[in-house]
Amino acid sequence: MAILDNKLGLEGEFKESDLPLLIRRAGMAEWDDGVVRILDRRELPLEVQYLECRTVEEVANAIENMAIQGAFSLSIAAGYGLALAGSDAQAIQLSAARLINTRPTGLALHRMMAACLARVDVALGEGEDPVRAIIDTVDKAAADLARQGWKTGQRAASLLEDGMSILTHCFPDRSYAYLLMEARREGKNLTIICSETRPYLQGARLTSLCAQQAGFDAKVITDGMSAYLMRRGDIDAFVTAADRVCMDGTVCNKIGTYQHALAARAHDLPYYTLRQSGPDRESAGEADVEVEIRSGDAILYCGGERTAPEGVQGLYPSFDITPPDLVSAIVTDRGIFLPREINTYIDSKPFIEDAIL
Amino acid sequence: MAILDNKLGLEGEFKESDLPLLIRRAGMAEWDDGVVRILDRRELPLEVQYLECRTVEEVANAIENMAIQGAFSLSIAAGYGLALAGSDAQAIQLSAARLINTRPTGLALHRMMAACLARVDVALGEGEDPVRAIIDTVDKAAADLARQGWKTGQRAASLLEDGMSILTHCFPDRSYAYLLMEARREGKNLTIICSETRPYLQGARLTSLCAQQAGFDAKVITDGMSAYLMRRGDIDAFVTAADRVCMDGTVCNKIGTYQHALAARAHDLPYYTLRQSGPDRESAGEADVEVEIRSGDAILYCGGERTAPEGVQGLYPSFDITPPDLVSAIVTDRGIFLPREINTYIDSKPFIEDAIL
Repeated sequence: MAILDNKLGLEGEFKESDLPLLIRRAGMAEWDDGVVRILDRRELPLEVQYLECRTVEEVANAIENMAIQGAFSLSIAAGYGLALAGSDAQAIQLSAARLINTRPTGLALHRMMAACLARVDVALGEGEDPVRAIIDTVDKAAADLARQGWKTGQRAASLLEDGMSILTHCFPDRSYAYLLMEARREGKNLTIICSETRPYLQGARLTSLCAQQAGFDAKVITDGMSAYLMRRGDIDAFVTAADRVCMDGTVCNKIGTYQHALAARAHDLPYYTLRQSGPDRESAGEADVEVEIRSGDAILYCGGERTAPEGVQGLYPSFDITPPDLVSAIVTDRGIFLPREINTYIDSKPFIEDAIL
Repeated sequence: MAILDNKLGLEGEFKESDLPLLIRRAGMAEWDDGVVRILDRRELPLEVQYLECRTVEEVANAIENMAIQGAFSLSIAAGYGLALAGSDAQAIQLSAARLINTRPTGLALHRMMAACLARVDVALGEGEDPVRAIIDTVDKAAADLARQGWKTGQRAASLLEDGMSILTHCFPDRSYAYLLMEARREGKNLTIICSETRPYLQGARLTSLCAQQAGFDAKVITDGMSAYLMRRGDIDAFVTAADRVCMDGTVCNKIGTYQHALAARAHDLPYYTLRQSGPDRESAGEADVEVEIRSGDAILYCGGERTAPEGVQGLYPSFDITPPDLVSAIVTDRGIFLPREINTYIDSKPFIEDAIL
């Protein structure tokens, strides 16, 4: 297996062995000679199990079944998955459509597939191997994401001070892990308070593991506790990733984020959003974000056991919207922006010239 | 088994068969000829199981193990439990201490035990049966609670309008059930949105069952969803019970309440607190409330399965504090009060002259 650091161009910043497991193996799927290897997040933290996908359909299922999550992570998995389609142009087209269908609203996923298909077109026109073209494209996207995430995490760490207790929600993925690594490198000791993030408990299962592996004290709370802990003075800042940032600074992230952001504002605490690749230029504001409403059944179970009586429905908006006035800063690879100025990201100096995602 | 309505003096208001199961059998424990019968809330809604307690220790365990919850409900169970101590004055004293120890901060529990011990003193002095004296005391307390709850629920229903969606948190117990019964009687159709209330899921398990049995549409959400649903316009009011109300209108209730109340205020929605017996005159304000911090292990499990990695801690403040400025009204048996005027409850006309709890 390739040494990830070298592949990602991060050599000299962190050694691979410094990186939390989740970032080494779960943040990014890996291509290994005809196999897409995915750390199964559903089994974490109790078991470390890898899915070895040998067909497009297996990768699509891994995404649909939540074995891998997060806009960027699943886009990389889908990208390598496309390399399993073979060399036939039509098979590649159909496979891209199948993979996009796993998360119809995923912008990064759309871009990953579009970039791969464009490279395949060029490769076929020039008589090159389309599989190699896909792998090269995804390798570059993965390396770019890692470098962007590292830069974003480094900037975010500059906003935090030694001794702070930081609330997170859901699993903020790569840039958050780099934030932790950078804070540790700078000798800042943080307490990471993880909102458990029902119904899939990514905060309890993944974020706490990542914080622990990065060398910090991790504590888990339920999704309803943050406001009172803020009232007690037990939380100093709220930090999340964002599934999407609009051009007006509106943040779309895992359901529960908005409630924590309201609580942070009520207690005069900052809310920092990490969005390494900046705003989505196709989304002007809240009206452009269609929040996915998932099957409410997920809410009616806990640990596999039904909790609510038959006939009761669950409601499950999977994301929520935090308006720009509740966001203190949006941290990106290009700099730290006030939400009302995030649109200037587009014309600011690129950190990576030709980033795909 | 006695017909509860007649025993409680509610005849003519509701027939027993109208009352949700939870109120008929779980809201109140029952004394049945040497047995304290308690509907085991932990098994609801999937199974209807009764605990039949024949010793003080069995009742104490039922309270400690969360088979019965809620300040008033467990006080009644403890009261009948004291009747299992026998006729010896010292055994009764020791049993009262044991039962108080199940919830050291429970004010209603303290009052229930004090009232029983005072009646036992009188009974022993007059050569009467102390067991009978205890049962009579608890019977009266239970009947008073039911009448207070009914009056409170009736007043609260007057605040709600046909077609509203009402958010609740935890299981608000008796007065909330009467609110639902009264709303139904008045032909008001409500949607009851139940915050699941981690870690014990009383909202998903008990409140939704109660709402369903009262004839309403019940929906379950996670504890982090209320703010976004309010933003979407899907919630019209927030209604909870209170574990304690201070003389300045501060509300102490199940952890998560404060966060929902902040969200309600941010969306200009009312938050109504039901506290049938008014404020605690021994609590001037927030500084007088000691919030019980329970073992964080409860947060690290879901459906019996551990979710967080070893070495990670859970934080579990079991209650939170909502300041009076976030409370729209406090509904009691004596009337509906603004939080800043709740102290006038004390000198207002009693609904029940000699209520114990």
